[in-house]
Amino acid sequence: MVLYVIGLGLADEKDITVKGLEAVKTCERVYLEAYTSILTVPKERLEALYERPVVIADREMVESEADEILRDADKINVAFLVVGDPFGATTHTDLVMRAKELSIPVIPIHNASIMNAVGCCGLQLYNYGQTISIVFFTDSWRPDSFYDKIKQNRAIGLHTLCLLDIKVKEQSIENMARGRKIYEPPRYMTVNQAVEQLIDIEETRQEGVYTKDTIAVGLARVGCPDQTIIAGTLEELVTADFGGPLHSLVIAGHMHFLEADLVRTYAVNPETFNRHAVILDH
Amino acid sequence: MVLYVIGLGLADEKDITVKGLEAVKTCERVYLEAYTSILTVPKERLEALYERPVVIADREMVESEADEILRDADKINVAFLVVGDPFGATTHTDLVMRAKELSIPVIPIHNASIMNAVGCCGLQLYNYGQTISIVFFTDSWRPDSFYDKIKQNRAIGLHTLCLLDIKVKEQSIENMARGRKIYEPPRYMTVNQAVEQLIDIEETRQEGVYTKDTIAVGLARVGCPDQTIIAGTLEELVTADFGGPLHSLVIAGHMHFLEADLVRTYAVNPETFNRHAVILDH
Repeated sequence: MVLYVIGLGLADEKDITVKGLEAVKTCERVYLEAYTSILTVPKERLEALYERPVVIADREMVESEADEILRDADKINVAFLVVGDPFGATTHTDLVMRAKELSIPVIPIHNASIMNAVGCCGLQLYNYGQTISIVFFTDSWRPDSFYDKIKQNRAIGLHTLCLLDIKVKEQSIENMARGRKIYEPPRYMTVNQAVEQLIDIEETRQEGVYTKDTIAVGLARVGCPDQTIIAGTLEELVTADFGGPLHSLVIAGHMHFLEADLVRTYAVNPETFNRHAVILDH
Repeated sequence: MVLYVIGLGLADEKDITVKGLEAVKTCERVYLEAYTSILTVPKERLEALYERPVVIADREMVESEADEILRDADKINVAFLVVGDPFGATTHTDLVMRAKELSIPVIPIHNASIMNAVGCCGLQLYNYGQTISIVFFTDSWRPDSFYDKIKQNRAIGLHTLCLLDIKVKEQSIENMARGRKIYEPPRYMTVNQAVEQLIDIEETRQEGVYTKDTIAVGLARVGCPDQTIIAGTLEELVTADFGGPLHSLVIAGHMHFLEADLVRTYAVNPETFNRHAVILDH
């Protein structure tokens, strides 16, 4: 039959499309990918609307048990649910490729993801450059290859969407060494943490790609009733309160004045916004 | 009450989200923006599922009759339906700003748009640069400012999503001059036309931004059962058959080998693909 890869959108169980809901109700087994993004509701809410039990699929399961996920999918329908759009993360590619090897048709059902929903902050989607990922720094590991990408984007005036790190089902080094399957509580990077790391990297690299006064926009829980959007200088965003996860960040490039008019409505301080925003009048 | 701005997704009436469907059913008046994109089904299909009459809103109506669209929206709910995601096009900004002036709450409901669904071609979304629009050339008007943007993207190895022109409810110069409200049949730019114009502009500008051998991916009717994806050199795509609208095009930048593995499955000719693709092995 079919492997449906169904985008769930951004917020809750009702962000699935009518087409996606009809598809999931034809499936004998339903998996939810739960390690690259999260919804704001527990899986029981999904199960109630979809009228199906939902199995949480962690990274280990998707990467090492693809054949179990695809079991009998030549005879029955299987659904693999993905927060956002099915093509937002690379991690599902292996599953899709494996299905193709087994001659199981794969039908994706699209949905909103942060990659397009970020348009709600007022910065137009066609003015974004490459998207970057910011991961949690540790004492010994401070990956900063994103700095060069921000540099490239800003050199030509483009905005930069920053996806912020998610740590789900991580083991401590001690537990990993001892082979104990004990997991740390999930961690979701906040806009505040991301902005601190960005300021930190600029202080190390000193290439003047951005400053503490560069305008950025933080977003939290996009698509939820309590969605929060706050614009300000990087320094202002260090202390802005965005509430719970998920958070995203956009470093603004040059803004068309219509973009600036919208973003300003979210500014911590319209005066500092006007002082530091790079606004084009055409 | 509320102005809902509801994304419809890409293909047909069932691409609306469950949340969007519930919202539209609370609305006394429902408008469909029908000039920046189209679905593949007539409005009657929408009306049947949404159980509401749907008024087609053309550009003139949205731009000059915002107050009529918003009439009584302090007392009733009004829905403004948008193909794709609500924030995909700038043209609705005026309506949203007008609603805010009138203190009418605006609730957007997100959905897939070509800006994120294009990930289905195998080129990863985070490797795209700025998006460009290619409009129909006329004898006297050949706008090519997109050429510089492609140049900027390609200089740093990024892919370029090209949105292709749509002409709906256009008047001929003669009819316009005579004040006759007679409209030309709608026109949708094909991948073939876009690629011809791109080759044409390179021949004029001669800055070597791309060649006839540059690899690109054409997409048609993304999200529909008859979705078509074809990869090849620009020259190969001049004659590839994509069928009916809507079409989009991606000019490939540097490809990670995993991206190339996926895109190659859509290639007109895997041999020319391998010869001309720029593939990174890390």
